[in-house]
Amino acid sequence: MAEGDAQAAGGSAGLSRRGLIGLALSSGVVGLAAGGAAGVAGGAAVARAEQGRGHEEPYAFFGPHQAGITTPVQDHLHFASFDMMPRTSREDLISLLQDWSYAASRMTQGLEVSATGAVGGDAQTPPDDTGEAMDLAVNGLTITFGFGPGLFENEDGDRYGLAGQRPAGLQRLPAFLGDDLDPESSQGDLCIQACADDPQVAVHAIRNLSRIAFGRARLRWSQLGFGRTSRTTSAQATPRNLFGYKDGTANILSDDTEALDDHVWVGASDEPDWLRGGSYLVARKIAMLIETWDRVRLVEQNEIIGRDKGAGAPLSGGDEFTEPDFHSTAFDENSHVRLAHSSMNDGIRILRRGYNYVDGNSALGRLDAGLFFLSYQRDPAQFVTLQRHLSTDLMNEYIRHIGSGIWAVPPGAEASSYVGAPLFR
Amino acid sequence: MAEGDAQAAGGSAGLSRRGLIGLALSSGVVGLAAGGAAGVAGGAAVARAEQGRGHEEPYAFFGPHQAGITTPVQDHLHFASFDMMPRTSREDLISLLQDWSYAASRMTQGLEVSATGAVGGDAQTPPDDTGEAMDLAVNGLTITFGFGPGLFENEDGDRYGLAGQRPAGLQRLPAFLGDDLDPESSQGDLCIQACADDPQVAVHAIRNLSRIAFGRARLRWSQLGFGRTSRTTSAQATPRNLFGYKDGTANILSDDTEALDDHVWVGASDEPDWLRGGSYLVARKIAMLIETWDRVRLVEQNEIIGRDKGAGAPLSGGDEFTEPDFHSTAFDENSHVRLAHSSMNDGIRILRRGYNYVDGNSALGRLDAGLFFLSYQRDPAQFVTLQRHLSTDLMNEYIRHIGSGIWAVPPGAEASSYVGAPLFR
Repeated sequence: MAEGDAQAAGGSAGLSRRGLIGLALSSGVVGLAAGGAAGVAGGAAVARAEQGRGHEEPYAFFGPHQAGITTPVQDHLHFASFDMMPRTSREDLISLLQDWSYAASRMTQGLEVSATGAVGGDAQTPPDDTGEAMDLAVNGLTITFGFGPGLFENEDGDRYGLAGQRPAGLQRLPAFLGDDLDPESSQGDLCIQACADDPQVAVHAIRNLSRIAFGRARLRWSQLGFGRTSRTTSAQATPRNLFGYKDGTANILSDDTEALDDHVWVGASDEPDWLRGGSYLVARKIAMLIETWDRVRLVEQNEIIGRDKGAGAPLSGGDEFTEPDFHSTAFDENSHVRLAHSSMNDGIRILRRGYNYVDGNSALGRLDAGLFFLSYQRDPAQFVTLQRHLSTDLMNEYIRHIGSGIWAVPPGAEASSYVGAPLFR
Repeated sequence: MAEGDAQAAGGSAGLSRRGLIGLALSSGVVGLAAGGAAGVAGGAAVARAEQGRGHEEPYAFFGPHQAGITTPVQDHLHFASFDMMPRTSREDLISLLQDWSYAASRMTQGLEVSATGAVGGDAQTPPDDTGEAMDLAVNGLTITFGFGPGLFENEDGDRYGLAGQRPAGLQRLPAFLGDDLDPESSQGDLCIQACADDPQVAVHAIRNLSRIAFGRARLRWSQLGFGRTSRTTSAQATPRNLFGYKDGTANILSDDTEALDDHVWVGASDEPDWLRGGSYLVARKIAMLIETWDRVRLVEQNEIIGRDKGAGAPLSGGDEFTEPDFHSTAFDENSHVRLAHSSMNDGIRILRRGYNYVDGNSALGRLDAGLFFLSYQRDPAQFVTLQRHLSTDLMNEYIRHIGSGIWAVPPGAEASSYVGAPLFR
């Protein structure tokens, strides 16, 4: 991970003139750029004391792909969707992406949001960094940015001059059977996925990026999650969702480069070229009717899922990682695993990265809880095909899709640049 | 902690006849008691695989005090407030407390909610345990129960025959200057504080206890929290709240038995006798206007808090643990530390155990975030006096108290009994 540090230092220095100036202007701070650039380029400390228990080596921010996709899934999520403010220009959007990239390149390396940090600046100005992560380790923080359909065409027409660059697949998802979407928890011009092994580190990142966006973009909705419901490396055990079942057994793993190239990364022959090395992100907030589920007999729960609750083995037998035998009569034809499995969907696969959520409870005393589903795919059609196939899923009686969003996820930033730069060339 | 295991096994066995029968009846499960008692008494496995990273030794459930008060503060909170259902009887309340105690005595030892667990029972019945914590370590889970004013007198009069046992101090808190309380996030007949180093373990506990309460009590409101904002042992570093400041520097620590006896535990000479060894819990949901706070100059932030943001030292000098010198002119007379410090309040102290929270964001794009304040004290008057003293706190411009509750927290259950048993003798 020394490479990551070096990349971050070099990259931030490269970016710093534009990034820092943008930050200085937007926050009304003067005289920050020089010291800031020196601080980052020199890799000077401000590093947080190692107090946390999570992943302590930083993940590289710069590189061919954004971090936070194949990165081993961290324990906690803070996801945020933003809308651009009215009357913002192409230059506002570019400066926002530069400032966000600069701040993200620092925070993901365990540094404060700028070189003056939470307490090191001029006491007569508000601190650049809000400070609540000051003593915490980096906790494997990754920050992943996405671009929604609204950037490419919106009610004001082609405000950002990007209509010609719009990926054909970047369309609002079609309506699915049983959708009960809340517009206020759906869509957004931009999204940020912050993942870390300590929620305070992820919250700190979203809070500070939201603050940096002031006057240019506004937080539209946000979601906290815990208990990762998938795995992206074979070293991670498969976690359980709030139905009590292992989730993510058949996920695409980070060392399966062939599957990643086939199913996750936008490829060298795909259009548009600025998105090559990127991906598409689909988010679905799926409420679980857990009190109803909890009254279902175990044998029936297993039938609905198509797997054994304890070990996670398919009902056709074996252990968690045995391939299901769908010729077996053990499965109901509408069991979840049967409808969702790649072998029943022309080999379609997606990389899942969702989290459990609990948002308190309803007035009726039911927990407001479920799965915040996140998936990365080379083409949104993969998700659409799978989701349509789930229209007869026995599980549908116990879930409601209440939020939805789609974003194009650009490739990682080059060390001298910012996330999304190829889009503006 | 072997002691804790022994206590749990012995205690559960002692409680099991009543506890299990209650559970079996309430969930419609028959033939569960014998196997369940044997399973627990024999300490038979069902123990979760040690996959989590948190505190792996269980804390004792039975003992003179409930766990979760002086226990080293865990990383995550799920707090829940319940109301008794209409037309419930004294017997319903007793059976609920027995069933809750039985389940808590198991879950806090890393066992499933009953001996048949999430998958081990009759497949033709719903599993006793919802299963999502099946593979997780105990993660230091503690479950702490409290009794609200409504148990002792309610709109139906003295439904539970407890009016004569009501602690004089157990009254709804008075209105404080600046209160903006939401009744739907306040009060409650019963409360449960579940703390663990993995949120999924705390959520699992509240979910299953809520399920066990079916027909007797109903979830009224609940709150998730992270980033403990205090410490209860000197081995714990002082964490930061969402204003970026260290919080809990002067907290009462678990090894300070004199301070605990003076300020936290209801004493041998206090009334009522059933509460001796217990405490009073005050909860306050305090929204922080963080976007406003983040625009305040550092020097002014320090003035408001009365401490230095970086090290946490009082403005009169020294380090974090230096006693503030309030004769110094360094402090504004309405700085938070000056108004809250015990030396300025006739020596009054409380044991704080609060958590940061983020509940998403408002329609204006502001994070809905703050501090879920929890304090334990021998007498609620301690909190009332301190809170009244804070009426001129400079910090008040940046916070709103939006939720409130008070509960009497009974002593720990004896190994052959349940939490609250002395109240019904």
